[in-house]
Order: sequence, then C-alpha cells, then structure tokens
Amino acid sequence: MHLQQGLLHILKRRLILFRFCGCVRSYSHSSKEGVLQRFRPAELAKFTERFDFPKATHTIWQLYQDANLQKQLRDGASSAKVVLHGWIDSPPRKVSRTRTFANLRDVQFLYRTVEQVENDKHEASDEEIATIQLFEDLTERLSDVDDPGVTLLRRMKQETCVCVEGHVCKAKGNVSWRLEVVVDRITVLNSAEDLVSQMRGAKEWDPKYRFLQLRSVRLQRALAMRSKAAGLIRNVLEGHRFTEVETPLLFRSTPEGAREFLVPSRTEPGKMYALPQSPQQYKQLLMASGVHRYYQFAKCFRDEDLRKDRQPEFTQVDLEMSFAKASDVQDIVEAILVRLWKEIKGVELQQPFKRLHYVEVMSRYGIDKPDLRSDIEIYDLSDFATSTTDPDYPVFEILVIRPKDLKFPPPPAEAEAEAVSAPDGNPTLRTPHYHRIMLSNEEPSKWLSECVAKFDLELVADLETTAKEIMLRFDIRDGDAVYSCTRQRVPFENPTPLGRQRLHIMQETMNLTEKSDAPLWVVDFPLFTPTATGRVVNGYIEYDYSRLVSTHHPFTMPCIASLPAVLEAGEDQSQSSCVDARATFGQHYDIVVNGVEVGGGSTRIHDSGLQRLVLSRILQVSGIRPNLEPGETEPDNPFTHLLNALSMSCPPHAGLALGLDRLCAMLNGSDSIRDVIAFPKTQTGSDPLVDSPSRVSDEQLGVYHVQLRK
Amino acid sequence: MHLQQGLLHILKRRLILFRFCGCVRSYSHSSKEGVLQRFRPAELAKFTERFDFPKATHTIWQLYQDANLQKQLRDGASSAKVVLHGWIDSPPRKVSRTRTFANLRDVQFLYRTVEQVENDKHEASDEEIATIQLFEDLTERLSDVDDPGVTLLRRMKQETCVCVEGHVCKAKGNVSWRLEVVVDRITVLNSAEDLVSQMRGAKEWDPKYRFLQLRSVRLQRALAMRSKAAGLIRNVLEGHRFTEVETPLLFRSTPEGAREFLVPSRTEPGKMYALPQSPQQYKQLLMASGVHRYYQFAKCFRDEDLRKDRQPEFTQVDLEMSFAKASDVQDIVEAILVRLWKEIKGVELQQPFKRLHYVEVMSRYGIDKPDLRSDIEIYDLSDFATSTTDPDYPVFEILVIRPKDLKFPPPPAEAEAEAVSAPDGNPTLRTPHYHRIMLSNEEPSKWLSECVAKFDLELVADLETTAKEIMLRFDIRDGDAVYSCTRQRVPFENPTPLGRQRLHIMQETMNLTEKSDAPLWVVDFPLFTPTATGRVVNGYIEYDYSRLVSTHHPFTMPCIASLPAVLEAGEDQSQSSCVDARATFGQHYDIVVNGVEVGGGSTRIHDSGLQRLVLSRILQVSGIRPNLEPGETEPDNPFTHLLNALSMSCPPHAGLALGLDRLCAMLNGSDSIRDVIAFPKTQTGSDPLVDSPSRVSDEQLGVYHVQLRK
Repeated sequence: MHLQQGLLHILKRRLILFRFCGCVRSYSHSSKEGVLQRFRPAELAKFTERFDFPKATHTIWQLYQDANLQKQLRDGASSAKVVLHGWIDSPPRKVSRTRTFANLRDVQFLYRTVEQVENDKHEASDEEIATIQLFEDLTERLSDVDDPGVTLLRRMKQETCVCVEGHVCKAKGNVSWRLEVVVDRITVLNSAEDLVSQMRGAKEWDPKYRFLQLRSVRLQRALAMRSKAAGLIRNVLEGHRFTEVETPLLFRSTPEGAREFLVPSRTEPGKMYALPQSPQQYKQLLMASGVHRYYQFAKCFRDEDLRKDRQPEFTQVDLEMSFAKASDVQDIVEAILVRLWKEIKGVELQQPFKRLHYVEVMSRYGIDKPDLRSDIEIYDLSDFATSTTDPDYPVFEILVIRPKDLKFPPPPAEAEAEAVSAPDGNPTLRTPHYHRIMLSNEEPSKWLSECVAKFDLELVADLETTAKEIMLRFDIRDGDAVYSCTRQRVPFENPTPLGRQRLHIMQETMNLTEKSDAPLWVVDFPLFTPTATGRVVNGYIEYDYSRLVSTHHPFTMPCIASLPAVLEAGEDQSQSSCVDARATFGQHYDIVVNGVEVGGGSTRIHDSGLQRLVLSRILQVSGIRPNLEPGETEPDNPFTHLLNALSMSCPPHAGLALGLDRLCAMLNGSDSIRDVIAFPKTQTGSDPLVDSPSRVSDEQLGVYHVQLRK
Repeated sequence: MHLQQGLLHILKRRLILFRFCGCVRSYSHSSKEGVLQRFRPAELAKFTERFDFPKATHTIWQLYQDANLQKQLRDGASSAKVVLHGWIDSPPRKVSRTRTFANLRDVQFLYRTVEQVENDKHEASDEEIATIQLFEDLTERLSDVDDPGVTLLRRMKQETCVCVEGHVCKAKGNVSWRLEVVVDRITVLNSAEDLVSQMRGAKEWDPKYRFLQLRSVRLQRALAMRSKAAGLIRNVLEGHRFTEVETPLLFRSTPEGAREFLVPSRTEPGKMYALPQSPQQYKQLLMASGVHRYYQFAKCFRDEDLRKDRQPEFTQVDLEMSFAKASDVQDIVEAILVRLWKEIKGVELQQPFKRLHYVEVMSRYGIDKPDLRSDIEIYDLSDFATSTTDPDYPVFEILVIRPKDLKFPPPPAEAEAEAVSAPDGNPTLRTPHYHRIMLSNEEPSKWLSECVAKFDLELVADLETTAKEIMLRFDIRDGDAVYSCTRQRVPFENPTPLGRQRLHIMQETMNLTEKSDAPLWVVDFPLFTPTATGRVVNGYIEYDYSRLVSTHHPFTMPCIASLPAVLEAGEDQSQSSCVDARATFGQHYDIVVNGVEVGGGSTRIHDSGLQRLVLSRILQVSGIRPNLEPGETEPDNPFTHLLNALSMSCPPHAGLALGLDRLCAMLNGSDSIRDVIAFPKTQTGSDPLVDSPSRVSDEQLGVYHVQLRK
C-alpha cells in the first residue's frame, strides 16, 4: 500500500487509483502539461473536486432571508439553482430505492441578538436555521443508483463535508416556512472517519477532539455570542471615546500578586520575561503618557491551581480613565452591562446599579460578592449580644430561614450544616449553630440559650427578654430555622460561616435562574488585609494585623477619610505594617452579578510619595526606600518605572477590568467558562488536543540558557 | 526628613507640613472622626485637592465642538463656567506683574478620520486642537500675587498636571476661531519633576522614559490612529459575518518555523509551553469545528534577531474562511485596505488590486515584494543570451535607468553598485555589472561585450546584431545606465542583484512619498524552497534541491496544476524531498503595498492524506508516517491534532494574516513600527522602561523545574 490515506476513500470505490498513481511515476518536471494529459481525466477530476468546487450561493440562514427566493416560491415557481456547503447532519433516510432524505448543517449563522430573533419572520430555533432538509430523487437517473462511481446522497456517511447543488422548494409538513433543497448534484469535499459519528453521540468528550465538540450548534452559538458581546463592549467604549492600546505580553516578574509564568530570554542569559497577570502597570504608564481613556481586550496569565472558573490564561476587558473617579468608571461599566443584557438577554437592567459598602455586604450577606437574587439577609445581633469566645470575633449574628423563603423543602438540617462547614477541603472553619424554632415543645428562648453556651455570649439583658426582643425585631416565628455564628467586626474571613450557609441554602432550595439578574457595586473594601498566621483555633482563623497585604493591589487609592491613617504610617519607623487594616478603606469597587465577581476596579494612587509610602512602609516591599532626597532619581527596584511615571505629573486616574470569560459564561447561561472558550485548558493546565505543554530538546533549552533541574 | 516625597512640593511652599504630620502621630484607630478634626483643615485640603477635584465639563476638542458655547460667544456673552484638565504645555509667559499667558494641553481628541477633518469647521491642526491658551489676570486679586499659599498659573512649571476653572472667550489674534480660557482658579493635580521639561526638548529619548515620549501629540495621534484603524478593520470583518475567536497563547513547540519562546510548566515537570508564532493551527482546527469565518487580532511571538520592523511580539489581523478560495480571502483583504486608505489617508484605492505571479514579479522586479511606485522594470534577455557561468543561474537580465526616470541626479555609479552589493552584511552576493551608454566614444555593443566576458554569455547571434536588437527592443539610448546580472530561472535568491539595485535607485533618486500607493497581490509562490547549502561560489548561492522547506508553511495547498507532481512524491521511497521545487507552486498570496509585505495568506490543504504526504515525504518531518493502515488512529506526533482534524471532514479553507504593526506604520507615514507600538522592545528584545527581562530567584525557577545552565 503505497497510497496516501486521503485518497483511500476514492480507492475503496474504484481500484483504478493504482493505475492513476502508477502513471505519475513517469512524470517529468520539464513537461508538466504532458503529465496532466497522461492522467486519466476522471480520476484526477475526482480528487481535484475536493479543492476546486463551486462557490456557495447561500448559507442556510441566507436562504431564509432571501426575499427574491421567497417570492419565487410563493409564486409557485422553482427557485434558481442554489449551491450550499456543509455537513450531512444525520445518516441519510432512504425512503425507497430512488428517494432519500437527509439534513444538511452549516452553522453559518451569526449570533442573533434578542432583537434580531424577534425581527426574524419565523420563530426558528438556532438548530432549525442551522440545518435544512435535502431530498434526492433518482427516479429519472436509475442508472446512477447502481453505479458506485456516481456520488449520491444516499451513500453519504454522517458528517461528510459536501457541496450541494440543487433547487429550493417548500418542505412538506406542518411548518409553513420550512424549506427543502432538491439535490441535483452532490460532491464530497472531505470525508468523515467513523470516529466522527461516534463522537457526536458522546456525553463526555475526549478533550483531544475538542474541535469536533465545537461543531455542535450549542457551542457554535456560544462562540458567536462571545464575538457579538465583544463587539457590543467595543461599541460602548468607542462611543465613550476610549482608545484601544495594546501592551506587551513579554513583561517582567513583579513581587506582588499571583504566581507568574516565566519566559527565559535568549539574548540576555539568565534573565526572564514574565507573562503579565494584567496590564495594570502598563495602563497606569499610559495614563502618565496622557492617553485620555484606554481600553484593551487583554490576555492575562495566572499560574494558580485551577478551579472550575479559572484558566491559566484568560481575557480581561481592561480599561483606565485619566482625570477620573469611581463614578466615571462605574458609569462606563454600567453602560456596558446594560447594553449586553439588553441585546444578548433581552433584559433591561435598572440604572444606577445598587451600591453597597464592603462592611455592609459582609454584615448582611457574609460574602464580598453576594448573590442578591434572594433577599434573605443575615442579622447582626450586636445590639443584643456579644461573643467572648475569641476577642477578634465579637459579632454574634443569625440567619433566619422562613418556610416561605424556600421553593423546595430544605434538606435535613444537621446534614446541611455539616455539608457547608467543610468546603475548600478546609475542615477547620466553624459550623453555624442550627436550631429550628418549635414553640409547641420548647421555651421560646431555647435557641438563644444554646447560642449563649456555644458562643460564650454576653447578653445586654436577661435571656428571656433578649430572646423575645430579638424575635420581635426580626420577626422570628414558629417553624423558622435559625443559623447562628460569630464574626469579626470588619470581616476578613470571606465568606463568613453564615455567608456560606446563605449561599448553600439559595443554591439548594431556590430556582435562581428564574430570578431577575441582580448587579451590584461593592465599594470601599479594606485597603489592606491582615495575613493569616496559618493557625486556626476552634475554627477561628488567626490573623497577624501587623503584617498586611493589599486587598486588591498596591496601587489602590485610600478612601479620603482613610488618608490620614495612611499618611501617619509614613512617620512610623518600625518594621511592621503600622496601619490598622480594620479602619483603612480603599477606593476599590467590584461589580458583582448574581454572586459572581464580574469585574474589579479602583481609583489609583497617582502621587508618587503616597505610592512609595504604601509600598515601602506598609507593604514592606524590599528595595523601595520610603524617601528620596531632593533631586535624587528613583533607584532600580521592581516599581521604578511606576514611581517615575507618577512623579512626572501623572494625572489622577481610575480603572477597572471585566473578566470576559465569566461575563460571557453568564450571558450564555453556562455554568462553566469552558463553554465560551474555544480551546480551554484542563484542570492541570494542559491542552490534550495539541498535547501542550510538551517536552523540548536540551538543545532548545540551551539556547535559552536553562536546563531541567536534576 | 520623615516626609514622603510626594508631599515635598507642598512643603517647599509651606513648611507648615511638619506640624501637619506631627499632629497625625497621635491618631487613634478607634476615633477616626476625631483625627480629621485634629488636622489643620487647610493643609489636609491642599493635599486632598490632588484626589478630590471637580469633573471636567469639556475637553479642549469638545470646547470647539460645543455649539451652545459658540453661540454664547457669537452673541458676545461670557461663557458659563468651564472646567478643563490637562498639562501646562510650555512655561507660562508673564506679561506683567498680574497678567500671565500659558497653554494647556490635553491631547484628549479622538483620532480624526480624513472625513472628520474635512467636516470640522476650523482647519485646525492636531496640535492646535490639543492645546488652548490660558489667561490669568490678577489685577483684582493683587493680594494673591504675593501670597505663596495661593496656587497661581504664573508659578506653574511646564508639564504640571492641573485642573483649570474659568470662562471661555474668543482669543485675540488673526485666527478667528481660536478660543482662550480666562482662569478663575487653577489647582495642581500632580507636579512635574524637572526631568519632564528637560525630556520634552530631547531628540533622542531614553527608552526608560517612553511614557513621557508618548505624551507628544505626534505619538498620541499615532496610538489613536491605530485604535481607529483596528476599529475599521473589525467593522469590515463583522460586516462580512466573521466571528472573533480567541485562541490560546500557551501553545506547544512545533518543529516548523521560527525560534519560539518557551514557558516552563509548573504542573508538568520538564514540559514546556511555547508562545505561538501565529494561531495557524488553532484557526485550522476552528475550520474543522465548523466556524464559518474566523478572525482575531492575534498576539504572535517570534524569537528572531530583531531588524528595524521586527518585534519579538507583534499583532496580526488573523483570518480564516471555510469553503473558501483565494478570491474570497483576497476580496475581504481588499475591502479592508480600501476602507483604511479611504478613511485614514483619504485615498481611493482602485479595485481589484493588481495580481502578479511570483515568477513574473521576480523577473520584472527582482523581489517578491516589489515596490510598484516606479514603473522601472528588469528585462529578461533570454531571447538573446544565456549565461553559462553557473548552470543554475542561466538567465541574463538587465535594468535600464533612463535619465528621465530620475528626479534627483544619480550618485556616482561605481560607488552605488558597491553600496548595494553588500547589504545584510553579506559580501558574497554578486555585484551587477554597470555600464553607461556613451555612443559618442564607444561601440554601441560595448556594454554587451563586457557582459559576455563577465557572465560567459552565449548569444543567439553575433555581438553587434544581438546588441542592436536588444537596444531596439528595449529602447536603450545614449546616456542610459545599464545594470546587468544573472539569475535562476525560478529565482529563489530574493531579492536578486538587480532587484536590490532597482530598490536602491528608487530610494536614492525618487520622491516615493509623492507617488500613489500601489497595492499588489503576489500569487503562486513556489510551494517549496530548496535549502541553501551555505556555500557561495563567485556570488552564486548554492542550493540543495533535494532538501526542501516550505516557502510559506507546510499547510499551503499546491496549485491544482502542481498537484500531480506532489502526489507523485508519495510514490517515491527515497529519503530526499523528491519533488522539483522549481516546478511546484502553491496557492499562496501575499498582499504587498509599496514594497512592504503587509500580509500573507494561502489556501490550505484540507485533505489529511495530502497533508501527511507533504509533511512526511517532502518535508521529512520525523514522527509522521506517510501512510496509516485502514482504521489506524494517528500516532502521537507534533501534528496529530491537525491530521486528525483534517481526516474528520474538515472543510476546504483559506486564510491570511495582516501585520497590524506594519500596516499602521504605513498608514501613519512612519518609517518604523515603533511609532505605532506603545511600548516597543529594543533591538535586543529588552524593555528598559520596566527593566524586562530581569533576574528571578532560584526559588522561582525551581517552582518551574528549571535552573540556569552553568
């Protein structure tokens, strides 16, 4: 067998090909035309058909949009000849010796916005406009039926790639608008291995065949939707006079933030580029450059262990505005979301979006990205009781679930409390105390007395009075489930035990997809977060309040009210972070939709002295001196460029980044961002489709002055 | 000095700040409000001004567009209060003790298309609409003049970042439309180090201060133009129903193509990602997935030694169309260029663009990316003479330069021929023979007799007859300069010596910017290129025609006429490339404008057998077998994914990539792509601005299982 596999399909039908190849052997380079004549014209033509085929006159979607064609059909005329390209969508249905039906699929429609779907004359589904029925009638071509040399629809395998020439007519059946193509000629453009049809039925896809999985109308639609969404976002930003600027991906390693992918340099032995976690520093430099409003669909990289909605590379809609403040940025982001929700989901989001402070969302919802599709809230009982178990966790709070709140019956309570107590594989987090009020066989204060014992509560009055007042204030009644727990005054534990409990109950017992989407700005986060010591005592995480890290990143501007506290830190000469994380807030704003953080932004520090103070005195970044002598230039450190830029009349600026993958998954109604990424990586960061990452030669590594660690 | 440097500017004027900082010392976290009261309100306010400033009512450009304001001014009224943000563009001009002029710059205009410039009422330059005159009159605020605590325009340094509040009036002077802002109040938003004004005058920029260089109106305009151009391109593509799909940047190393940047994997020790040279393989997979028309502004990486218009990372407008052929792709690209030239340059390019075959452009222009802004052509003299110096270089050709062709007088000829003979640091390339026809004191055949001697010519007739016929056919006259040389029949040497000579003469002696832009399709390149052996004999490069590499890439479809020759190679069992590179052409098309290759594309091989044949038998890629047994799955090799995808009814497809950086440089009239890249790398691939690449710790490398080579 000296034949190429691609020719095998022809060979199977006509063994003539051996001769065809044989006669090419004598081919001479000096007489090309001669060789062509020596081919048997039919065989060469058969192979050449794959490469030299007629242009399509329509896509399936265009057939339905073609007013001329519709008119011809209404007038009872036969359509002019049409040419379609596509795939045989399902095995042909032979209804007699001469008559065959099949479906052609082309998936060549654009993503239709809600408005476009409404304007379409036919209420066709995406699947319907992606396929059309083919009909082959060989009654008058009986000789072809038995000639294996003629390409016929009835002999096609599922998923064969074809060119169909024929005429359009109305399809018989109940649906008046449906069309059908009567096939005059069908040509194979590429054949399908058996695997193709096997794969199409598969539930679990082997990621090696992602390209086939993408052939589904569902994923084609998701890709097209993402493209449409990106266009809408650009449209809004260009309407607001943003300039798209691309920033380098071969960046440098920075001491703050997540683990970074490194790229060894060939020309500077021993040095490394790093792939950027975000264009944060470059975009701030662009502000110093005088770019008024910047945006970019930025590729970002984070080498973290992957969770469901994390990928090592992802796309951010990154934007920054000079001379701007929080409200300027928020207005733009709201305009983007309103436009997307309207055109993609057909939903009018109400503006302005709700705004809540970090401390308030933590108190009411126990998480910094609350899902507001339920109005269940956590109640802070500080007016009535204080916990003394751990001095850092004094706040006593409850979550009351009323039977009316639940669409589905709740699961058995103990099992439930168990389940939520151990997420993230962390068994040390506290379990909320659970009690169902049963006034028929217990004292009304029983639940509180249990809490007093469990959380060492100090009550403002006696047990009965306090319990009564709490139940009155918060309308707690017979049959209600009361979950209780403790938290810090400004909670760095995120989510809190009750926040986790609230989410769990929402997910288990409510039909959240029926609820209205609930966008929310969470603002004024703590500027700094204390580091966890790693010790957990009775479920209480221990924090070191003298070693702080940035909650967002080191470039976030303090709230004006927190400015004195930050400035004071500059006066402190100790080696600790010398500012109270619990009392220092930053101009940081997250946009949260349905419990998903869709984007995060902040007003930045644009004063070099203030930035140097934060980096050196508070975050203790090595190599950065708290002060420069007058006239001294910034010494080399990882932030020299930024401090230089700020010191050279960089304007005030603010910006934000939207996670495009998450945003599109949400618009698409997908649980996973993998639905809206053409070629996602697996949980281990690999791509089995192209077998990446892969081994390279020692020689190739040597060019980059590195070797594998022994 | 315990003060932060950012506060120093205030300090210099008011030493009060010591006290301000002193009083913060006693700040207590539990009483934030108390602390604010303890500040002297004036000092805190001064610092807070930088962060808490009024919103701008206008940009300068908007002032000129504001119809209401224009009407007020025409009516002789004073404008309502306006607020502008920007920078002091030049040192303030103090015209008296109380009166000061200065210019404010904001560079906040969008890129204006040709049409927009025409529609603008005023024929203002970009510089003019980027700045506006400020006027401060302190006649009625005499006490302020001597009070160092009051912020005044007259005390501003150049490049100070300010917020100006004032009223607009007509500026005095010749230009009727020019406006001026009478300053009521000016606030410093950020101060400028002395360096800023020093740098502004600099001709050569220290790349460490790229962000300041970008503050120039020229570069701001270039960035905005690029953003505009990208938007126009997207617009055309979306109009043609393209779907934007992002493909991974963490790809794998492939055996074909340029040197690749490697990215070590943390989770798979010893394995590497590679950054993609282009999304070629992923976009072909998308075609197999059924994406109809794909595009992407793709980040690409090539670790090659940098030349003037090369960067290690660059951006391609990458597109691919299924069921498409050359003309489909070319139509789209023409639509893009026509749109760009029209809207950015105000030039109507004529469609369809000229199309020339590779062999023809090499014969007529001696280079595969000819600059057609001159109609000077090279003449093939094969009808008259053949060179016998080197059997692979038989073609004798001449370039005739007539005095009328030259705008400037040509440089001395010998020096000139010398100069072009040694480009690229390669001294072995042949020097064309030069002769200026001087009929007054030489035989008309003298030039040819010199060539006979130099190139061992075999003439078809005697010397005099041949010379006469050549001069008649090509209209060679007294005073003309004749350059002559030899080449291959299908020239792989590119440019040829005469091609280089033609370019040199055009660049040295013609005003090319005055000429019309000349887009051109160069089509049907040789599918394969013989490898150079490295030996050069008398300036003749030696090629090994049995070891071939892809001219474009291994996925380019042969021309239908070359298909038999390629198929034949599948029958050959030798270890050589077994196809004649001189007679095998590919469906490859480059778009060339003014001698710059703006983009390259091809129709791809979509038949897995043909692709396997090219990879295994002709390109001899190891690990790929020429044949698979029936039912056998593709074994692991670097192209498994692609061969799998092709074998599973991948449709015919074709595509192209435009080099966005070069395209924008051309639209911008820039010699260098650095003008249209915000943060370019230097010739050594480094970015001195952020100090990238940089050293990282051994620990950081260890996480990635690599170490520096000892």
